[in-house]
Amino acid sequence: MIVTIIGLGLIGGSMALDLKKRGFASQILGVDSNKEHARRAEEIGFVDAIVDLKDAAKLSNVIILAVPVDASIQLINEILPQLDSQILIDVGSTKEPLINVANQHENRNLFLAAHPMAGTEFTGPDSAISGLFDNNAVIFCDVENSSTKAVSMAEKLFTTLNMRRIDMDAKSHDVHAAYVSHISHISSFALALSVLHKEKNEKNIFDMASGGFTSTVRLAKSSPAMWAPIFLQNKANVTEVLDTYINFLYDFKLALFNDDEKRLYELMNRANSIQPILQNKEEKLVEITK
Amino acid sequence: MIVTIIGLGLIGGSMALDLKKRGFASQILGVDSNKEHARRAEEIGFVDAIVDLKDAAKLSNVIILAVPVDASIQLINEILPQLDSQILIDVGSTKEPLINVANQHENRNLFLAAHPMAGTEFTGPDSAISGLFDNNAVIFCDVENSSTKAVSMAEKLFTTLNMRRIDMDAKSHDVHAAYVSHISHISSFALALSVLHKEKNEKNIFDMASGGFTSTVRLAKSSPAMWAPIFLQNKANVTEVLDTYINFLYDFKLALFNDDEKRLYELMNRANSIQPILQNKEEKLVEITK
Repeated sequence: MIVTIIGLGLIGGSMALDLKKRGFASQILGVDSNKEHARRAEEIGFVDAIVDLKDAAKLSNVIILAVPVDASIQLINEILPQLDSQILIDVGSTKEPLINVANQHENRNLFLAAHPMAGTEFTGPDSAISGLFDNNAVIFCDVENSSTKAVSMAEKLFTTLNMRRIDMDAKSHDVHAAYVSHISHISSFALALSVLHKEKNEKNIFDMASGGFTSTVRLAKSSPAMWAPIFLQNKANVTEVLDTYINFLYDFKLALFNDDEKRLYELMNRANSIQPILQNKEEKLVEITK
Repeated sequence: MIVTIIGLGLIGGSMALDLKKRGFASQILGVDSNKEHARRAEEIGFVDAIVDLKDAAKLSNVIILAVPVDASIQLINEILPQLDSQILIDVGSTKEPLINVANQHENRNLFLAAHPMAGTEFTGPDSAISGLFDNNAVIFCDVENSSTKAVSMAEKLFTTLNMRRIDMDAKSHDVHAAYVSHISHISSFALALSVLHKEKNEKNIFDMASGGFTSTVRLAKSSPAMWAPIFLQNKANVTEVLDTYINFLYDFKLALFNDDEKRLYELMNRANSIQPILQNKEEKLVEITK
């Protein structure tokens, strides 16, 4: 199987590493508009060759689109008309806008929209790591509009990456992603901004920081070029969850203002109920790993 | 050296483990108003014996107060008058209110207020772990009001735990702790509440969650009994940082509303500048570990 990966960063690079190592791909071709990233991907060795975007379709069996979500909307219009039987899989973090564009094309059924729920706060070819996707979920969107061949090819590909498939319509995906991924990033960015803002007057504030802080602020290192288009494409859902989030923060503020210990306990006890849910998830992962 | 630890949970238990193992304490005595916790601490073996609070002072050289910050304010009034030359060290997360109480006592100079910047989201004797404090900072507050003997005893104790000392007045400590610790917890609690709120109508939303979400929501598992008194005692500072935090969240919301990509980039680029600061911190830790 020859796989072309468009976008040789964290996601594309990490997919390349494991698809090759685990025998899904006999050859990995790479496309990247950033020449330095392309050179580096070849140097690291997770692509066998760099090719032009216009040659990607005719040279490969599967094409993976792993670029920022604003770029994928541009690229899908270029790639879909070039396909005859090859499969195009996109792996971005928002789905509805891209699928709306895909739906305009005759070749729509050769396309499958997937979202592997994995990542780190790092960017570029040097951030690619083996095992990134292991034991996480991958969302397949609107599978009824993709051919059986496209779905089974994607199924085989993500099984190679040790991911468990969940099917969802694009609309639901974008709502859920806002809640379990996009808001975490905004929450981290805002936390970093708050402490940096204070640090202007209070030197060495970071010397005190320990594990709790670094854990909640970790995602603030994430790439603006990747996240700005995600937030904008998923604006309605992200705004909804931001409003919910801000309201709960005001609940804390009001409870503090009123010295309302009972209300603070209520809020935190309810938040604590996330523990068995996450634990259950962690146990499931351990089971899969065994 | 005989050390009595009052409060046999995550912090007290983890201190007991390493103070014994690393030779600072020849014997560890334990006090806990929760009989089940006391029994369990003895069973696990990180205390050699359970004693009554009224006997703690006369039986030991050093007393460590590792209880929720509302309880420590009660207990300090009981313990300080019992001391003649023993040292009392408190390890709670807020300092000004406790020090204000300590300052009323004749024995004030036998007391040192310290805040070891370490913890996990777990609670109780079973959450105690060796190495919890290694390579983190410990804040000593208002050291000029503690005797040389108290300061050097505390210095020796926290050096045994591999912590680096930072001196600060109590007021500054409480401001800084609000920024690098307390807000992280509220941010996590509110994130958990937002997703749980949505989950009422959207089943299985957590199936999608991956590392980024679990990292930002981890602290939402923290104990309300520990955190409610911290937030209330540090109400003014926590409210200030909550306001700053909410304002930055509104900045994101406004940028989304206006489709203002430039502003989103500005906010995220500024947040990204936390990376070298945290990295520098991580490198420092590696250096210490070597």
